[in-house]
Amino acid sequence: MSSTRDIDTLIEMMAKLPGLGPRSARRAVLHLIRKRDVQLKPLADAMQVVAATARECLNCGNVGTSDICDICASEKRANGEICVVEDVADLWAMERAGVFKGRYHVLGGTLSALDAIGPEDLRIPQLVNRVQAEEVREVILALNATIDGQTTAHYIADQLEGRVTLTSLAQGVPIGGELDYLDDGTITAALNARKAL
Amino acid sequence: MSSTRDIDTLIEMMAKLPGLGPRSARRAVLHLIRKRDVQLKPLADAMQVVAATARECLNCGNVGTSDICDICASEKRANGEICVVEDVADLWAMERAGVFKGRYHVLGGTLSALDAIGPEDLRIPQLVNRVQAEEVREVILALNATIDGQTTAHYIADQLEGRVTLTSLAQGVPIGGELDYLDDGTITAALNARKAL
Repeated sequence: MSSTRDIDTLIEMMAKLPGLGPRSARRAVLHLIRKRDVQLKPLADAMQVVAATARECLNCGNVGTSDICDICASEKRANGEICVVEDVADLWAMERAGVFKGRYHVLGGTLSALDAIGPEDLRIPQLVNRVQAEEVREVILALNATIDGQTTAHYIADQLEGRVTLTSLAQGVPIGGELDYLDDGTITAALNARKAL
Repeated sequence: MSSTRDIDTLIEMMAKLPGLGPRSARRAVLHLIRKRDVQLKPLADAMQVVAATARECLNCGNVGTSDICDICASEKRANGEICVVEDVADLWAMERAGVFKGRYHVLGGTLSALDAIGPEDLRIPQLVNRVQAEEVREVILALNATIDGQTTAHYIADQLEGRVTLTSLAQGVPIGGELDYLDDGTITAALNARKAL
């Protein structure tokens, strides 16, 4: 590399981001250097701000810039529903859909015997506490439809049984989905959950 | 989005990088927030440093952290050879190969009638000056084997004709290449440039 050390360092750091490798990191850094006034400086500033202020919500685990995130802080979202998600990315996906009006609880992963992740490594005890402390009517388990996700959902359901209404997202054919491209499990789930027209 | 504005701003900026879109930008930012002490802060610092110091070499157009890049500043690289490339990324690719010991000249693009890019928009006049000012024996045209790249190579060859030895990279079968997967043009070029064993 003929570029000097600072540039190499930046490329190495960018290459560690998920979705970027050495080649795309070089491309991104070159692009940023070309647009250093309009993109690189603002991006560096924005990163500094987020690095200084970003934190996890003490209540739900969402990321934000205060100890209690905007959703937990909003009284409008206190409708007695808690949506349990694995990850902040899942929370963002739910928010983009814009249909859920309650609050969230971010587990921060799934139970995994192989990776030695137990309930205390996730935010499951905090969820149990919230169900007791807040006025919660319904806990919606919006975990991924994977083995680990469903195992975690079952575990949480066991913990909360009898204390609150428990629901989970419906499984079936996604909007725009074509039967020919769906796996057997999805078709089976959709058939079993069929609805009267 | 439930994330606060600073985080949204960072995601929007990251999504503008080549190779990243909204989804991968969200993923990268979440990853950085999770690792804010070991990755986000160092990355922000590295960007600030590069934003403050990165500039184009006044001589060859390479990027570096001083007005004259390391290669142009090194007396060891003054071997009378100038390798002309379209882009800094191409220069980096040549340097990774580690076989070229001379200096470079980065054009910053290719001639393009459609995009109204003429010789004065590239660094072609500077190249002509360098050939007169520096003791240059050979100019190696290492432009991409595209229509625009080859057009630009022909133009430069016209400009420098008679003043210096002009060469271009060989065209042929890439190392590890399988004939069955090569296009007709490459096979034709390789056959025309065949060598005695």
